Amino acid sequence: MAVSNILENLNPNVSVDCVVFGFEFGKLDILLIERNMLYEGTEFKDLKLPGDLVRKDEDLDTAASRVLRELTGLGNIYLKQYLAFGSPDRLLRQPRDLEWLRSIGHPEEIVVTVAYYSLINIDHDMGASYKLQPNARWYTVSEVNELAFDHMTIVREALKALRTDLISKPIAFELLPPKFTLGMMQQLYEVILGTKLDKRNFRKKVANMPYIIPINEKQVDVSHKPAQFHSFNHKVYLKNKKDSF
Amino acid sequence: MAVSNILENLNPNVSVDCVVFGFEFGKLDILLIERNMLYEGTEFKDLKLPGDLVRKDEDLDTAASRVLRELTGLGNIYLKQYLAFGSPDRLLRQPRDLEWLRSIGHPEEIVVTVAYYSLINIDHDMGASYKLQPNARWYTVSEVNELAFDHMTIVREALKALRTDLISKPIAFELLPPKFTLGMMQQLYEVILGTKLDKRNFRKKVANMPYIIPINEKQVDVSHKPAQFHSFNHKVYLKNKKDSF
Repeated sequence: MAVSNILENLNPNVSVDCVVFGFEFGKLDILLIERNMLYEGTEFKDLKLPGDLVRKDEDLDTAASRVLRELTGLGNIYLKQYLAFGSPDRLLRQPRDLEWLRSIGHPEEIVVTVAYYSLINIDHDMGASYKLQPNARWYTVSEVNELAFDHMTIVREALKALRTDLISKPIAFELLPPKFTLGMMQQLYEVILGTKLDKRNFRKKVANMPYIIPINEKQVDVSHKPAQFHSFNHKVYLKNKKDSF
Repeated sequence: MAVSNILENLNPNVSVDCVVFGFEFGKLDILLIERNMLYEGTEFKDLKLPGDLVRKDEDLDTAASRVLRELTGLGNIYLKQYLAFGSPDRLLRQPRDLEWLRSIGHPEEIVVTVAYYSLINIDHDMGASYKLQPNARWYTVSEVNELAFDHMTIVREALKALRTDLISKPIAFELLPPKFTLGMMQQLYEVILGTKLDKRNFRKKVANMPYIIPINEKQVDVSHKPAQFHSFNHKVYLKNKKDSF
């Protein structure tokens, strides 16, 4: 299809961008797209978030799911809209961004982007359908310092939203396996919050979460004293939340 | 200015809508705009949210502040972006909405709207600059059941966001006066959460909030036993939040 035909089906002023967090025990990754371009006659390489203009016949959530599916092959991944970004200069702060937009036939319009963050458990969610686009790769979040457009701001806000949600919503249990030890849970909190936590304090917090239920099963084949497994009970969580005020 | 000139400065595909909550002791209000129109030859009246297309030279927060200022005369009001809405049919579910859009010269485009909620303390925030547009009026939230476009959905989501934020962020203290009794605080929580709360449980929760500090002052001129005043300490709140995991 010619570029102009594709554009006819797109809303030229609205895009979605996806901040895809990948959790492995010990670290937090982010999925980024390598952008290769000629800039002022030389080859130039940098990174951007996966995203796309929204089609005229799809809603925002559908657009974000589509971007994620086209990028990874995965459907059914936790996706959360957290903030829209609309500074008039957001795509044009660096001259190479404008040049790149022109090279791909992107209309020179103001684009408001609706940002989603997504959580993937790298150890568990990678089924048979998982297949990254060739220009996509995982990077360690803490090592990413510069991105195209205003994407660094979008990533920083995603981290803020993720951290707030980790404390106020049960998203930790999207990433933990069905049976987990409190050590695994603490490590997950530490990786996402980006800080070491005091073990005693952490256990005290967990003791106040009646929806985290010890199960009659312990680790096997570990060199240290085997820890007890726990599970997350969604029903108890909802009841507790309802009663919390 | 002719309609076409005004539209040149507007992004035809992106708007902001404001859900303005007004708190009075005992009830929660919402600020709505009366829409008068001819529909199929007869006069028709309904209600909509205040909102506008975003100008090409302003960011989203600026657009929302502008809408609120034009509507109420007030600046410096708590405004929070909480969700964007982009269903392709969101403006066209009812034929009268389409007719109204045509009558005001609105481009027939898909409009993604970025929604903000705002909190106004009706007893305290109404300074000299407060002046409502003639077609705007306060309505009791619980009595609003039908609005133009998808605005009822936008209001329901705003209430959800407000309730979540009330529990996880210090927004209650945006609405309470600097000195407040625990009874006033409980009433505020009840009005926003839309439910009665158990007094003993509520006091227990407050006892776990070290940033709510009793001050050496009591109510005067009340018929019941005078209650002690409390204040919110933002510094203690931030420290407590930092230590919370």
